[in-house]
Amino acid sequence: MSIPPRSETTQPDTHPSRLRSLESSTEITVELGLRSYPISIQSGATSRTDKMGFASRLAEAIGDCTHVILIQDASVAASAGQAIIESLPHHGVRVSILEVASGEASKSTDRLTDLWGELLACGTDRRSVVIAVGGGVIGDLAGFAAATFTRGLRFVQVPTTLLAMVDSSVGGKTGINLPGGKNMIGAFWQPHLVWIDTDFLSTLPTREYVSGLAEVIKYGVIEDAEFFEFLESNIAAIIRRDPEPTRLAIARSCQSKARVVADDELETSGRRAILNYGHTFAHAIEATAGYGAMLHGEAVAIGMQMAASLSVDLGYCDAGLLTRQTALLEAAELPRSWPEADPAKMIPIMARDKKVAHGKLRFVLPESIGSVKLVGDVPEENVVAAIQAWI
Amino acid sequence: MSIPPRSETTQPDTHPSRLRSLESSTEITVELGLRSYPISIQSGATSRTDKMGFASRLAEAIGDCTHVILIQDASVAASAGQAIIESLPHHGVRVSILEVASGEASKSTDRLTDLWGELLACGTDRRSVVIAVGGGVIGDLAGFAAATFTRGLRFVQVPTTLLAMVDSSVGGKTGINLPGGKNMIGAFWQPHLVWIDTDFLSTLPTREYVSGLAEVIKYGVIEDAEFFEFLESNIAAIIRRDPEPTRLAIARSCQSKARVVADDELETSGRRAILNYGHTFAHAIEATAGYGAMLHGEAVAIGMQMAASLSVDLGYCDAGLLTRQTALLEAAELPRSWPEADPAKMIPIMARDKKVAHGKLRFVLPESIGSVKLVGDVPEENVVAAIQAWI
Ligand SMILES: NC(=O)c1ccc[n+]([C@@H]2O[C@H](COP(=O)([O-])OP(=O)(O)OC[C@H]3O[C@@H](n4cnc5c(N)ncnc54)[C@H](O)[C@@H]3O)[C@@H](O)[C@H]2O)c1
Ligand SMILES: NC(=O)c1ccc[n+]([C@@H]2O[C@H](COP(=O)([O-])OP(=O)(O)OC[C@H]3O[C@@H](n4cnc5c(N)ncnc54)[C@H](O)[C@@H]3O)[C@@H](O)[C@H]2O)c1
Ligand SMILES: [Zn+2]
Ligand SMILES: [Zn+2]
Repeated sequence: MSIPPRSETTQPDTHPSRLRSLESSTEITVELGLRSYPISIQSGATSRTDKMGFASRLAEAIGDCTHVILIQDASVAASAGQAIIESLPHHGVRVSILEVASGEASKSTDRLTDLWGELLACGTDRRSVVIAVGGGVIGDLAGFAAATFTRGLRFVQVPTTLLAMVDSSVGGKTGINLPGGKNMIGAFWQPHLVWIDTDFLSTLPTREYVSGLAEVIKYGVIEDAEFFEFLESNIAAIIRRDPEPTRLAIARSCQSKARVVADDELETSGRRAILNYGHTFAHAIEATAGYGAMLHGEAVAIGMQMAASLSVDLGYCDAGLLTRQTALLEAAELPRSWPEADPAKMIPIMARDKKVAHGKLRFVLPESIGSVKLVGDVPEENVVAAIQAWI
Repeated sequence: MSIPPRSETTQPDTHPSRLRSLESSTEITVELGLRSYPISIQSGATSRTDKMGFASRLAEAIGDCTHVILIQDASVAASAGQAIIESLPHHGVRVSILEVASGEASKSTDRLTDLWGELLACGTDRRSVVIAVGGGVIGDLAGFAAATFTRGLRFVQVPTTLLAMVDSSVGGKTGINLPGGKNMIGAFWQPHLVWIDTDFLSTLPTREYVSGLAEVIKYGVIEDAEFFEFLESNIAAIIRRDPEPTRLAIARSCQSKARVVADDELETSGRRAILNYGHTFAHAIEATAGYGAMLHGEAVAIGMQMAASLSVDLGYCDAGLLTRQTALLEAAELPRSWPEADPAKMIPIMARDKKVAHGKLRFVLPESIGSVKLVGDVPEENVVAAIQAWI
């Protein structure tokens, strides 16, 4: 099994001391000048008997450190959390362990305030390092706590969901929700290291895993045609979570995200917008379904179908693209349609998003597999038709 | 009256359209590359009949903007707050007004959470601009809210205390307190403009005004000998708040702070530490006096006396420096001693600060007027003697 590397950001791990313990490991650098950092992706390295993979990579990325605060999702405390704790050096590093309840409700001002207090109580100072172990909820919350405690602590992401591995742990967006607005509060705060081990996926429920695949497929459509082909050939093995194809799919997804983020760290140039392929529809689907009823990736899969239909309808791409995308989403066991989709409810929500997009209703529309464009001022009737195509 | 400019950072305001309304205005640029911003310092420009000084400078610094959120200290709502509101353009800009209770207690997680909710409720989005009108409490709180709402809003400081004009509004430190730790939570977030009008000082209680003078004198000692001489000659007029010498003293203080901040934006190079002259002692004085019993600047004045005595004692400077500093603080009507100072209580607090300073008890000590050095590992007995010198 192999996938042609897009080598400008892949650095195959050739350091001999690491090669011994991490036979198949990929390292990607997110190129952000002084804030550049590595994403290290492997299978089974964290829980090896020697348990040295993580500790040595951490030491390299962080330098000296005498206090680590591990902030973990309650549901991974016994698995990934424990493996990380055991792999930390036993001497000279004080380890504080803070636990956060599973679920989106933890990304709240209340939980944040408690976390700030817990950081103070465990003696955190400017030289302490925060390690977040969990899905996107933990990464976003712990990352924001790290960004703001004493105006910024060093921070390591150990994502344990597929979505967090391929999306939320890379790119430096951290934050919490307000009662009336998701991700309304936050900061750009880049980690010093992202440590991904496919082993951590073994306990993840199927529905969560499959949902994460929507973002993986998204990268293929928006900017990596070769990767899309790789997914078409290997989707069955990835569904089975075979370590090597899964690891490659994650690495290639991280490369995509790293490229986009390097071009537009603070979401100012507009490049980062391509990551929102399918998301304008998806946000409206999630909101009308009631948050939580549908997983984010499920809504994204349906949203990509609507966006692709819109693109075909407007003449930006041919129908073959839609056929391939539909087939891949189906093979990934993702939903492609939503019987309850209601344009009359969804369009006002999409229009409200307007404000954020500087007064224009914009869509990210595919031109071909691997290439998208931003289109503004799409007539409402076409948007209605695109939604109705996937009811 | 004149004071020789240190012209590398002074940009006299020569734009004809502004010259008309702002005869005596100084503009200083804080040089931070893409994050550079102007500090505009004048007397009586905000409340002129044409009221155009602030609005036109704002438009220049911010560019287009359709929503302004003015966050003001309750005690300046009728004065500075009202003047700023009246000077905003009447067309095409929606203005939301949020009020914060006076006092350090507003720099809390509770008030921050409320403020985030109020920002959301008044329709704030990424293109909104926050204007903070008040002392350091408002600037720190509103600045942190601006730093974190939708991961960062543009932000303008309109300081109304002398301390905020010469210190807290310049440099980008924003934040709040935790019950167990002052300024424990925060972010570096540079404003787009700092607008200072000496008129706003007219309502400030004498004790608050005098307290702010301690930081002004500090700049003279740490890095601007000429400015120290200017203060020696003009302190009586400054105490009377005569507009022109007061304006010049503020401008020169901002220049000092801007120079230090430009060298060390994120407090990483160590240069910013010189701003802590007198502060290691001052923090211990404030803590043992009970926070609030002594104003910050009063504690800083006493702390500078202790630091200068320590420097003389250790042979880093001659006694003449201490004589001049004592005379200037006295002329400024600041305290120079504190009968209740107790080395047995203060030293443990100073030692606790250690952690922050990477395990070393450091002091900023003067070598001559206009020059300081950082000294580590000072013997405790000398510290005790320095405290006892000013009981
Ligand atoms: N920062 C970003 O750039 C970014 C990007 C996308 C999404 N997000 C955010 O990420 C969050 C969603 O992330 P998510 O999908 O990872 O959600 P999540 O963190 O809630 O995890 C999903 C569920 O899986 C559980 N879980 C996590 N790891 C597990 C494991 N290894 N085994 C068993 N169970 C496990 C969690 O307890 C949770 O119940 C949202 O809050 C979203 O806003 C952020
Ligand atoms: N960010 C920084 O770099 C920095 C630097 C130094 C201090 N600070 C912070 O600044 C705060 C202290 O600032 P401060 O001394 O301005 O305190 P403050 O904001 O509490 O103001 C002092 C008092 O003066 C009142 N006031 C303000 N302007 C007035 C006016 N024009 N007329 C009448 N009354 C007025 C206020 O209501 C308050 O009661 C502290 O929280 C400190 O931590 C921050
Ligand atoms: Zn997504
Ligand atoms: Zn101070």
